[in-house]
Amino acid sequence: MNSPHLSRGSKQPPPPKSGKLRLYSNRFCPYSQRVVLVLDAKKIPYDVVNINLSNKPDWIYDKNPYGKIPTLELDNGDCLYESSIIADYLDEKYHQHPLHAKDPLQKAKDKILIEQFNRIITTMYRVMMNVGRIGLDDDEAISEGLTTFEKELGRRGTQFYSGNKPGMLDFMIWPWCERADILKLFGNQHLLKREKYKKLMEWRRRMTEEPTVKKSILDSDYHIKYLQSYRAGMPDYDFILNSK
Amino acid sequence: MNSPHLSRGSKQPPPPKSGKLRLYSNRFCPYSQRVVLVLDAKKIPYDVVNINLSNKPDWIYDKNPYGKIPTLELDNGDCLYESSIIADYLDEKYHQHPLHAKDPLQKAKDKILIEQFNRIITTMYRVMMNVGRIGLDDDEAISEGLTTFEKELGRRGTQFYSGNKPGMLDFMIWPWCERADILKLFGNQHLLKREKYKKLMEWRRRMTEEPTVKKSILDSDYHIKYLQSYRAGMPDYDFILNSK
Repeated sequence: MNSPHLSRGSKQPPPPKSGKLRLYSNRFCPYSQRVVLVLDAKKIPYDVVNINLSNKPDWIYDKNPYGKIPTLELDNGDCLYESSIIADYLDEKYHQHPLHAKDPLQKAKDKILIEQFNRIITTMYRVMMNVGRIGLDDDEAISEGLTTFEKELGRRGTQFYSGNKPGMLDFMIWPWCERADILKLFGNQHLLKREKYKKLMEWRRRMTEEPTVKKSILDSDYHIKYLQSYRAGMPDYDFILNSK
Repeated sequence: MNSPHLSRGSKQPPPPKSGKLRLYSNRFCPYSQRVVLVLDAKKIPYDVVNINLSNKPDWIYDKNPYGKIPTLELDNGDCLYESSIIADYLDEKYHQHPLHAKDPLQKAKDKILIEQFNRIITTMYRVMMNVGRIGLDDDEAISEGLTTFEKELGRRGTQFYSGNKPGMLDFMIWPWCERADILKLFGNQHLLKREKYKKLMEWRRRMTEEPTVKKSILDSDYHIKYLQSYRAGMPDYDFILNSK
Protein backbone atom coordinates (compact mmCIF):
# COMPACT_ATOMS: atom_id res chain seq x y z
CA MET A 1 0.00 0.00 0.00
CA ASN A 2 2.93 2.32 0.66
CA SER A 3 4.79 1.45 -2.55
CA PRO A 4 6.38 4.32 -4.53
CA HIS A 5 4.05 6.37 -6.74
CA LEU A 6 4.92 5.63 -10.36
CA SER A 7 5.49 8.54 -12.74
CA ARG A 8 5.72 9.20 -16.47
CA GLY A 9 8.46 7.07 -17.96
CA SER A 10 8.19 4.37 -15.32
CA LYS A 11 7.90 0.78 -16.45
CA GLN A 12 4.46 -0.73 -16.31
CA PRO A 13 4.33 -3.32 -13.51
CA PRO A 14 3.69 -6.94 -14.56
CA PRO A 15 0.09 -8.19 -14.16
CA PRO A 16 -0.93 -9.26 -10.65
CA LYS A 17 -0.61 -12.88 -9.60
CA SER A 18 -3.51 -14.99 -10.79
CA GLY A 19 -6.61 -14.59 -8.66
CA LYS A 20 -5.58 -11.16 -7.42
CA LEU A 21 -7.22 -7.89 -8.25
CA ARG A 22 -5.05 -4.86 -9.00
CA LEU A 23 -5.89 -1.43 -7.65
CA TYR A 24 -4.36 1.64 -9.32
CA SER A 25 -4.38 4.03 -6.44
CA ASN A 26 -2.73 6.92 -4.62
CA ARG A 27 -1.89 6.80 -0.93
CA PHE A 28 -3.46 10.19 -0.26
CA CYS A 29 -6.56 9.89 -2.45
CA PRO A 30 -9.69 9.51 -0.31
CA TYR A 31 -11.64 7.95 -3.20
CA SER A 32 -8.96 5.28 -3.60
CA GLN A 33 -9.11 4.66 0.13
CA ARG A 34 -12.83 3.92 -0.22
CA VAL A 35 -11.98 0.99 -2.49
CA VAL A 36 -9.11 -0.13 -0.24
CA LEU A 37 -11.53 -0.22 2.70
CA VAL A 38 -14.05 -2.31 0.77
CA LEU A 39 -11.36 -4.75 -0.44
CA ASP A 40 -9.96 -5.08 3.08
CA ALA A 41 -13.37 -5.38 4.76
CA LYS A 42 -14.35 -8.16 2.35
CA LYS A 43 -10.91 -9.79 2.55
CA ILE A 44 -10.50 -9.83 -1.22
CA PRO A 45 -6.89 -10.44 -2.36
CA TYR A 46 -5.42 -7.47 -4.29
CA ASP A 47 -2.23 -5.60 -4.92
CA VAL A 48 -1.73 -1.87 -5.24
CA VAL A 49 0.03 0.18 -7.89
CA ASN A 50 0.39 3.77 -6.72
CA ILE A 51 0.22 6.54 -9.31
CA ASN A 52 1.91 9.94 -9.18
CA LEU A 53 -1.06 12.16 -10.00
CA SER A 54 1.00 15.21 -10.88
CA ASN A 55 3.11 13.31 -13.42
CA LYS A 56 1.14 10.28 -14.56
CA PRO A 57 2.66 7.32 -16.40
CA ASP A 58 1.31 7.00 -19.95
CA TRP A 59 0.14 3.43 -19.44
CA ILE A 60 -2.46 4.46 -16.87
CA TYR A 61 -4.54 5.69 -19.84
CA ASP A 62 -4.65 2.11 -21.13
CA LYS A 63 -6.40 1.20 -17.89
CA ASN A 64 -8.69 4.22 -17.67
CA PRO A 65 -9.41 6.59 -20.59
CA TYR A 66 -9.37 9.50 -18.16
CA GLY A 67 -6.18 8.36 -16.44
CA LYS A 68 -7.98 8.61 -13.13
CA ILE A 69 -7.65 6.58 -9.98
CA PRO A 70 -9.01 4.54 -8.32
CA THR A 71 -9.11 2.07 -11.18
CA LEU A 72 -9.64 -1.60 -10.45
CA GLU A 73 -8.13 -4.13 -12.87
CA LEU A 74 -9.75 -7.54 -12.94
CA ASP A 75 -8.34 -10.98 -13.68
CA ASN A 76 -9.50 -10.78 -17.29
CA GLY A 77 -7.94 -7.36 -17.92
CA ASP A 78 -11.21 -5.44 -17.63
CA CYS A 79 -10.93 -2.20 -15.71
CA LEU A 80 -13.54 -0.47 -13.59
CA TYR A 81 -13.53 3.07 -12.24
CA GLU A 82 -15.58 5.48 -10.10
CA SER A 83 -15.15 4.60 -6.43
CA SER A 84 -18.80 3.97 -5.62
CA ILE A 85 -19.35 1.85 -8.76
CA ILE A 86 -16.29 -0.26 -7.87
CA ALA A 87 -17.49 -0.56 -4.26
CA ASP A 88 -20.96 -1.72 -5.34
CA TYR A 89 -19.43 -4.14 -7.86
CA LEU A 90 -17.19 -5.72 -5.23
CA ASP A 91 -20.08 -6.09 -2.81
CA GLU A 92 -22.24 -7.76 -5.46
CA LYS A 93 -19.54 -9.99 -6.91
CA TYR A 94 -17.98 -11.17 -3.64
CA HIS A 95 -20.62 -12.42 -1.27
CA GLN A 96 -18.43 -12.70 1.84
CA HIS A 97 -18.75 -9.93 4.46
CA PRO A 98 -21.63 -8.10 2.76
CA LEU A 99 -21.42 -4.32 3.22
CA HIS A 100 -24.67 -3.04 1.75
CA ALA A 101 -27.94 -3.60 3.59
CA LYS A 102 -29.84 -6.59 2.23
CA ASP A 103 -33.10 -4.67 2.26
CA PRO A 104 -33.33 -2.59 -0.96
CA LEU A 105 -35.03 0.28 0.89
CA GLN A 106 -32.34 0.52 3.57
CA LYS A 107 -29.69 0.25 0.87
CA ALA A 108 -31.29 3.10 -1.08
CA LYS A 109 -31.48 5.24 2.07
CA ASP A 110 -27.78 4.62 2.72
CA LYS A 111 -26.97 5.56 -0.87
CA ILE A 112 -28.89 8.81 -0.47
CA LEU A 113 -26.77 9.60 2.60
CA ILE A 114 -23.57 8.80 0.67
CA GLU A 115 -24.81 11.18 -2.02
CA GLN A 116 -25.58 13.83 0.61
CA PHE A 117 -22.09 13.42 2.04
CA ASN A 118 -20.77 14.64 -1.32
CA ARG A 119 -21.69 18.18 -0.27
CA ILE A 120 -19.32 17.86 2.68
CA ILE A 121 -16.65 16.38 0.40
CA THR A 122 -16.93 19.20 -2.13
CA THR A 123 -16.65 21.83 0.58
CA MET A 124 -13.74 20.09 2.32
CA TYR A 125 -11.92 19.75 -0.97
CA ARG A 126 -12.35 23.41 -1.78
CA VAL A 127 -11.24 24.47 1.67
CA MET A 128 -8.24 22.17 1.86
CA MET A 129 -6.97 22.48 -1.68
CA ASN A 130 -7.75 25.99 -2.87
CA VAL A 131 -9.03 28.43 -0.34
CA GLY A 132 -6.93 29.49 2.61
CA ARG A 133 -9.76 30.14 5.03
CA ILE A 134 -13.21 28.78 5.55
CA GLY A 135 -16.02 31.16 4.68
CA LEU A 136 -19.42 31.27 6.32
CA ASP A 137 -21.05 29.29 3.48
CA ASP A 138 -18.49 26.53 3.85
CA ASP A 139 -19.06 26.53 7.58
CA GLU A 140 -22.74 26.12 7.04
CA ALA A 141 -22.47 23.39 4.39
CA ILE A 142 -20.18 21.34 6.60
CA SER A 143 -22.06 21.86 9.85
CA GLU A 144 -25.42 21.18 8.17
CA GLY A 145 -24.01 18.00 6.66
CA LEU A 146 -22.47 16.82 9.91
CA THR A 147 -25.68 17.55 11.79
CA THR A 148 -27.56 15.28 9.38
CA PHE A 149 -25.09 12.50 10.07
CA GLU A 150 -25.11 13.12 13.84
CA LYS A 151 -28.90 12.88 13.92
CA GLU A 152 -28.96 9.82 11.69
CA LEU A 153 -26.65 7.95 14.04
CA GLY A 154 -28.97 8.85 16.92
CA ARG A 155 -32.02 7.76 14.95
CA ARG A 156 -30.46 4.41 14.08
CA GLY A 157 -29.23 3.91 17.65
CA THR A 158 -26.42 1.62 16.49
CA GLN A 159 -22.65 1.73 16.95
CA PHE A 160 -22.07 2.14 13.24
CA TYR A 161 -24.39 3.33 10.48
CA SER A 162 -24.68 -0.26 9.34
CA GLY A 163 -25.31 -1.79 12.76
CA ASN A 164 -22.84 -3.40 15.13
CA LYS A 165 -20.07 -3.36 12.52
CA PRO A 166 -19.18 -0.88 9.79
CA GLY A 167 -20.85 -1.29 6.40
CA MET A 168 -20.88 0.48 3.07
CA LEU A 169 -22.07 3.87 4.34
CA ASP A 170 -19.48 3.86 7.15
CA PHE A 171 -16.65 3.07 4.74
CA MET A 172 -17.77 5.46 1.99
CA ILE A 173 -17.65 8.47 4.33
CA TRP A 174 -14.66 7.38 6.41
CA PRO A 175 -11.74 8.76 4.32
CA TRP A 176 -12.98 12.33 4.83
CA CYS A 177 -13.74 11.75 8.51
CA GLU A 178 -10.17 10.50 8.92
CA ARG A 179 -9.01 13.84 7.49
CA ALA A 180 -11.45 15.99 9.46
CA ASP A 181 -8.90 17.36 11.90
CA ILE A 182 -7.09 19.06 9.03
CA LEU A 183 -10.03 21.41 8.71
CA LYS A 184 -9.00 22.99 11.99
CA LEU A 185 -5.90 24.28 10.27
CA PHE A 186 -8.01 26.37 7.92
CA GLY A 187 -11.31 26.69 9.67
CA ASN A 188 -12.68 28.87 12.36
CA GLN A 189 -12.99 27.82 15.98
CA HIS A 190 -16.65 26.90 15.82
CA LEU A 191 -16.50 24.56 12.90
CA LEU A 192 -15.73 21.23 14.41
CA LYS A 193 -16.92 21.76 17.93
CA ARG A 194 -16.87 18.27 19.29
CA GLU A 195 -19.78 18.81 21.66
CA LYS A 196 -22.09 19.44 18.67
CA TYR A 197 -21.27 16.04 17.21
CA LYS A 198 -20.93 13.75 20.20
CA LYS A 199 -22.27 10.65 18.50
CA LEU A 200 -20.18 11.23 15.40
CA MET A 201 -17.05 11.63 17.51
CA GLU A 202 -17.82 8.37 19.30
CA TRP A 203 -18.40 6.70 15.93
CA ARG A 204 -15.12 8.11 14.67
CA ARG A 205 -13.24 6.74 17.66
CA ARG A 206 -14.83 3.34 17.18
CA MET A 207 -13.92 3.37 13.48
CA THR A 208 -10.23 3.94 14.30
CA GLU A 209 -10.32 0.72 16.31
CA GLU A 210 -11.65 -1.40 13.44
CA PRO A 211 -9.05 -3.75 11.93
CA THR A 212 -10.18 -2.80 8.39
CA VAL A 213 -9.72 0.91 9.07
CA LYS A 214 -6.40 0.36 10.84
CA LYS A 215 -4.95 -1.14 7.67
CA SER A 216 -5.08 2.12 5.72
CA ILE A 217 -5.44 4.87 8.35
CA LEU A 218 -2.87 7.67 8.47
CA ASP A 219 -2.31 10.14 11.29
CA SER A 220 -3.37 13.71 10.69
CA ASP A 221 0.31 14.67 10.64
CA TYR A 222 0.76 12.70 7.43
CA HIS A 223 -2.31 14.20 5.82
CA ILE A 224 -1.18 17.68 6.78
CA LYS A 225 2.34 17.14 5.48
CA TYR A 226 0.96 15.90 2.16
CA LEU A 227 -1.48 18.78 1.96
CA GLN A 228 1.23 21.32 2.59
CA SER A 229 3.31 19.86 -0.24
CA TYR A 230 0.24 19.92 -2.51
CA ARG A 231 -0.58 23.52 -1.69
CA ALA A 232 3.03 24.48 -2.31
CA GLY A 233 2.57 23.15 -5.86
CA MET A 234 4.83 20.11 -5.41
CA PRO A 235 2.71 17.26 -4.11
CA ASP A 236 4.92 14.74 -2.33
CA TYR A 237 3.28 11.33 -2.27
CA ASP A 238 6.37 9.36 -1.35
CA PHE A 239 7.61 10.95 1.90
CA ILE A 240 5.58 8.30 3.64
CA LEU A 241 7.98 5.62 2.34
CA ASN A 242 10.75 6.99 4.53
CA SER A 243 8.58 7.66 7.54
CA LYS A 244 6.58 4.46 7.84
CA MET B 1 -48.66 12.19 -16.15
CA ASN B 2 -49.94 15.43 -17.71
CA SER B 3 -51.68 16.67 -14.56
CA PRO B 4 -51.29 20.36 -13.62
CA HIS B 5 -48.04 21.34 -11.91
CA LEU B 6 -48.84 22.26 -8.31
CA SER B 7 -47.55 25.56 -6.92
CA ARG B 8 -47.05 27.25 -3.57
CA GLY B 9 -50.36 27.49 -1.78
CA SER B 10 -51.83 24.46 -3.51
CA LYS B 11 -53.46 21.79 -1.40
CA GLN B 12 -51.41 18.69 -0.78
CA PRO B 13 -52.95 15.77 -2.69
CA PRO B 14 -54.28 12.84 -0.61
CA PRO B 15 -51.98 9.80 -0.32
CA PRO B 16 -52.02 7.41 -3.28
CA LYS B 17 -54.34 4.42 -3.29
CA SER B 18 -52.96 1.53 -1.29
CA GLY B 19 -50.33 -0.44 -3.16
CA LYS B 20 -49.46 2.47 -5.42
CA LEU B 21 -46.21 4.40 -5.41
CA ARG B 22 -46.33 8.17 -5.76
CA LEU B 23 -43.88 10.05 -7.95
CA TYR B 24 -43.37 13.77 -7.36
CA SER B 25 -42.30 14.85 -10.79
CA ASN B 26 -42.25 17.49 -13.50
CA ARG B 27 -43.36 16.79 -17.05
CA PHE B 28 -40.25 18.44 -18.53
CA CYS B 29 -37.63 17.15 -16.08
CA PRO B 30 -35.41 14.53 -17.75
CA TYR B 31 -34.38 13.07 -14.38
CA SER B 32 -38.04 12.53 -13.46
CA GLN B 33 -38.57 10.89 -16.85
CA ARG B 34 -35.84 8.39 -15.98
CA VAL B 35 -37.94 7.18 -13.04
CA VAL B 36 -41.14 7.21 -15.12
CA LEU B 37 -39.42 4.99 -17.69
CA VAL B 38 -38.29 2.52 -15.03
CA LEU B 39 -41.74 2.40 -13.41
CA ASP B 40 -43.41 1.89 -16.80
CA ALA B 41 -40.86 -0.69 -18.01
CA LYS B 42 -41.34 -2.72 -14.84
CA LYS B 43 -45.10 -2.17 -14.86
CA ILE B 44 -45.15 -0.92 -11.28
CA PRO B 45 -48.41 0.88 -10.34
CA TYR B 46 -47.84 4.57 -9.49
CA ASP B 47 -49.44 7.95 -9.69
CA VAL B 48 -47.81 11.27 -10.48
CA VAL B 49 -47.95 14.60 -8.69
CA ASN B 50 -46.39 17.30 -10.87
CA ILE B 51 -44.52 20.13 -9.15
CA ASN B 52 -44.10 23.70 -10.40
CA LEU B 53 -40.35 24.07 -10.00
CA SER B 54 -40.33 27.86 -10.20
CA ASN B 55 -42.91 28.20 -7.42
CA LYS B 56 -42.81 25.07 -5.30
CA PRO B 57 -45.54 24.08 -2.83
CA ASP B 58 -44.27 24.12 0.77
CA TRP B 59 -45.28 20.51 1.39
CA ILE B 60 -42.75 19.20 -1.13
CA TYR B 61 -40.11 19.89 1.55
CA ASP B 62 -41.85 17.36 3.81
CA LYS B 63 -41.16 14.78 1.13
CA ASN B 64 -37.62 15.85 0.26
CA PRO B 65 -35.48 18.16 2.42
CA TYR B 66 -34.14 19.81 -0.74
CA GLY B 67 -37.58 20.13 -2.32
CA LYS B 68 -36.22 18.41 -5.40
CA ILE B 69 -37.86 16.09 -7.88
CA PRO B 70 -37.98 13.25 -8.76
CA THR B 71 -39.00 12.07 -5.31
CA LEU B 72 -40.61 8.67 -4.90
CA GLU B 73 -43.04 8.18 -2.01
CA LEU B 74 -43.52 4.64 -0.82
CA ASP B 75 -46.50 2.89 0.72
CA ASN B 76 -45.10 3.42 4.21
CA GLY B 77 -44.51 7.16 3.72
CA ASP B 78 -40.75 6.83 3.19
CA CYS B 79 -39.40 9.00 0.41
CA LEU B 80 -36.46 8.34 -1.90
CA TYR B 81 -34.67 10.77 -4.20
CA GLU B 82 -31.83 10.95 -6.75
CA SER B 83 -32.98 9.43 -10.03
CA SER B 84 -30.34 6.72 -10.31
CA ILE B 85 -30.77 5.65 -6.67
CA ILE B 86 -34.54 5.40 -7.18
CA ALA B 87 -34.01 3.46 -10.43
CA ASP B 88 -31.66 0.97 -8.78
CA TYR B 89 -34.02 0.62 -5.82
CA LEU B 90 -36.99 -0.17 -8.06
CA ASP B 91 -34.99 -2.73 -10.02
CA GLU B 92 -33.85 -4.46 -6.82
CA LYS B 93 -37.19 -4.33 -5.05
CA TYR B 94 -39.43 -5.35 -7.95
CA HIS B 95 -38.10 -8.44 -9.64
CA GLN B 96 -40.35 -8.36 -12.72
CA HIS B 97 -38.82 -7.11 -15.96
CA PRO B 98 -35.27 -6.74 -14.62
CA LEU B 99 -33.43 -3.78 -16.16
CA HIS B 100 -29.89 -4.10 -14.85
CA ALA B 101 -27.61 -6.86 -16.16
CA LYS B 102 -27.55 -9.86 -13.84
CA ASP B 103 -23.77 -10.13 -14.14
CA PRO B 104 -22.17 -7.67 -11.63
CA LEU B 105 -19.35 -6.86 -14.08
CA GLN B 106 -21.71 -5.97 -16.94
CA LYS B 107 -23.84 -3.99 -14.50
CA ALA B 108 -20.77 -2.05 -13.32
CA LYS B 109 -19.74 -1.34 -16.93
CA ASP B 110 -23.23 -0.02 -17.68
CA LYS B 111 -23.09 2.19 -14.59
CA ILE B 112 -19.74 3.61 -15.73
CA LEU B 113 -21.36 4.51 -19.07
CA ILE B 114 -24.30 6.15 -17.28
CA GLU B 115 -21.73 8.12 -15.28
CA GLN B 116 -19.87 9.07 -18.48
CA PHE B 117 -23.14 10.23 -20.03
CA ASN B 118 -23.29 12.86 -17.28
CA ARG B 119 -20.69 14.86 -19.21
CA ILE B 120 -23.11 15.06 -22.14
CA ILE B 121 -25.93 15.99 -19.77
CA THR B 122 -23.93 18.79 -18.14
CA THR B 123 -22.99 20.24 -21.49
CA MET B 124 -26.51 19.95 -22.92
CA TYR B 125 -27.94 21.59 -19.83
CA ARG B 126 -25.52 24.48 -20.05
CA VAL B 127 -26.16 24.94 -23.74
CA MET B 128 -29.94 24.70 -23.52
CA MET B 129 -30.54 26.66 -20.36
CA ASN B 130 -27.89 29.32 -20.17
CA VAL B 131 -25.73 29.86 -23.18
CA GLY B 132 -27.14 30.98 -26.47
CA ARG B 133 -24.66 29.27 -28.75
CA ILE B 134 -22.54 26.17 -28.54
CA GLY B 135 -18.83 26.78 -28.16
CA LEU B 136 -16.06 24.54 -29.46
CA ASP B 137 -15.52 22.92 -26.06
CA ASP B 138 -19.18 22.02 -25.82
CA ASP B 139 -19.05 20.64 -29.35
CA GLU B 140 -16.15 18.46 -28.40
CA ALA B 141 -17.61 17.22 -25.11
CA ILE B 142 -20.83 16.20 -26.83
CA SER B 143 -19.27 14.65 -29.92
CA GLU B 144 -16.67 12.78 -27.84
CA GLY B 145 -19.44 11.47 -25.60
CA LEU B 146 -21.67 10.44 -28.50
CA THR B 147 -18.75 8.73 -30.24
CA THR B 148 -18.20 6.62 -27.12
CA PHE B 149 -21.84 5.55 -27.19
CA GLU B 150 -21.81 4.97 -30.97
CA LYS B 151 -18.77 2.69 -30.65
CA GLU B 152 -20.19 0.89 -27.64
CA LEU B 153 -23.34 -0.02 -29.53
CA GLY B 154 -21.16 -1.39 -32.34
CA ARG B 155 -19.05 -3.34 -29.89
CA ARG B 156 -22.10 -4.89 -28.24
CA GLY B 157 -23.69 -5.62 -31.62
CA THR B 158 -27.18 -5.59 -30.11
CA GLN B 159 -30.31 -3.59 -30.89
CA PHE B 160 -30.26 -1.89 -27.52
CA TYR B 161 -27.44 -1.42 -25.03
CA SER B 162 -29.04 -4.09 -22.87
CA GLY B 163 -29.63 -6.61 -25.66
CA ASN B 164 -32.78 -7.21 -27.67
CA LYS B 165 -34.84 -4.95 -25.42
CA PRO B 166 -34.01 -1.72 -23.60
CA GLY B 167 -32.54 -1.98 -20.10
CA MET B 168 -31.27 0.36 -17.42
CA LEU B 169 -28.54 2.02 -19.51
CA ASP B 170 -30.95 2.62 -22.41
CA PHE B 171 -33.54 4.22 -20.13
CA MET B 172 -31.06 6.28 -18.08
CA ILE B 173 -29.74 8.07 -21.19
CA TRP B 174 -33.01 8.23 -23.13
CA PRO B 175 -34.51 11.50 -21.77
CA TRP B 176 -31.56 13.50 -23.17
CA CYS B 177 -31.59 11.59 -26.46
CA GLU B 178 -35.28 12.41 -26.80
CA ARG B 179 -34.30 16.08 -26.48
CA ALA B 180 -31.26 15.89 -28.77
CA ASP B 181 -32.87 17.68 -31.70
CA ILE B 182 -33.22 20.82 -29.60
CA LEU B 183 -29.45 21.18 -29.72
CA LYS B 184 -29.77 22.05 -33.40
CA LEU B 185 -31.50 25.25 -32.40
CA PHE B 186 -28.41 26.40 -30.56
CA GLY B 187 -25.60 24.36 -32.05
CA ASN B 188 -23.51 24.57 -35.15
CA GLN B 189 -24.13 22.55 -38.29
CA HIS B 190 -21.56 19.87 -37.57
CA LEU B 191 -22.73 18.92 -34.13
CA LEU B 192 -25.30 16.27 -34.69
CA LYS B 193 -24.33 15.03 -38.11
CA ARG B 194 -26.36 11.89 -38.40
CA GLU B 195 -23.82 10.06 -40.55
CA LYS B 196 -21.31 10.18 -37.65
CA TYR B 197 -23.72 8.37 -35.37
CA LYS B 198 -25.50 5.90 -37.59
CA LYS B 199 -25.92 3.21 -34.95
CA LEU B 200 -27.08 5.71 -32.34
CA MET B 201 -29.65 7.11 -34.76
CA GLU B 202 -30.94 3.62 -35.45
CA TRP B 203 -31.07 2.94 -31.70
CA ARG B 204 -32.93 6.19 -31.20
CA ARG B 205 -35.51 5.29 -33.83
CA ARG B 206 -35.99 1.88 -32.24
CA MET B 207 -36.41 3.45 -28.81
CA THR B 208 -39.25 5.67 -30.07
CA GLU B 209 -41.11 2.50 -31.05
CA GLU B 210 -40.88 0.92 -27.60
CA PRO B 211 -44.21 0.91 -25.70
CA THR B 212 -42.44 2.05 -22.50
CA VAL B 213 -40.88 5.04 -24.25
CA LYS B 214 -44.11 5.90 -26.06
CA LYS B 215 -45.85 6.41 -22.73
CA SER B 216 -43.80 9.48 -21.80
CA ILE B 217 -42.24 10.70 -25.05
CA LEU B 218 -42.87 14.27 -26.19
CA ASP B 219 -42.24 15.74 -29.64
CA SER B 220 -39.34 18.14 -29.98
CA ASP B 221 -41.90 20.92 -30.54
CA TYR B 222 -43.08 20.53 -26.95
CA HIS B 223 -39.56 20.50 -25.56
CA ILE B 224 -38.69 23.59 -27.58
CA LYS B 225 -41.82 25.44 -26.48
CA TYR B 226 -41.05 24.65 -22.84
CA LEU B 227 -37.41 25.67 -23.25
CA GLN B 228 -38.38 28.97 -24.81
CA SER B 229 -40.66 29.75 -21.87
CA TYR B 230 -37.86 28.77 -19.47
CA ARG B 231 -35.30 30.94 -21.20
CA ALA B 232 -37.74 33.82 -21.18
CA GLY B 233 -37.77 33.54 -17.38
CA MET B 234 -41.35 32.23 -17.16
CA PRO B 235 -41.22 28.46 -17.41
CA ASP B 236 -44.60 27.17 -18.58
CA TYR B 237 -45.09 23.57 -17.52
CA ASP B 238 -48.82 23.43 -18.10
CA PHE B 239 -49.27 24.44 -21.77
CA ILE B 240 -49.19 20.74 -22.48
CA LEU B 241 -52.53 20.31 -20.70
CA ASN B 242 -54.29 22.22 -23.43
CA SER B 243 -52.38 20.71 -26.28
CA LYS B 244 -52.44 17.00 -25.51
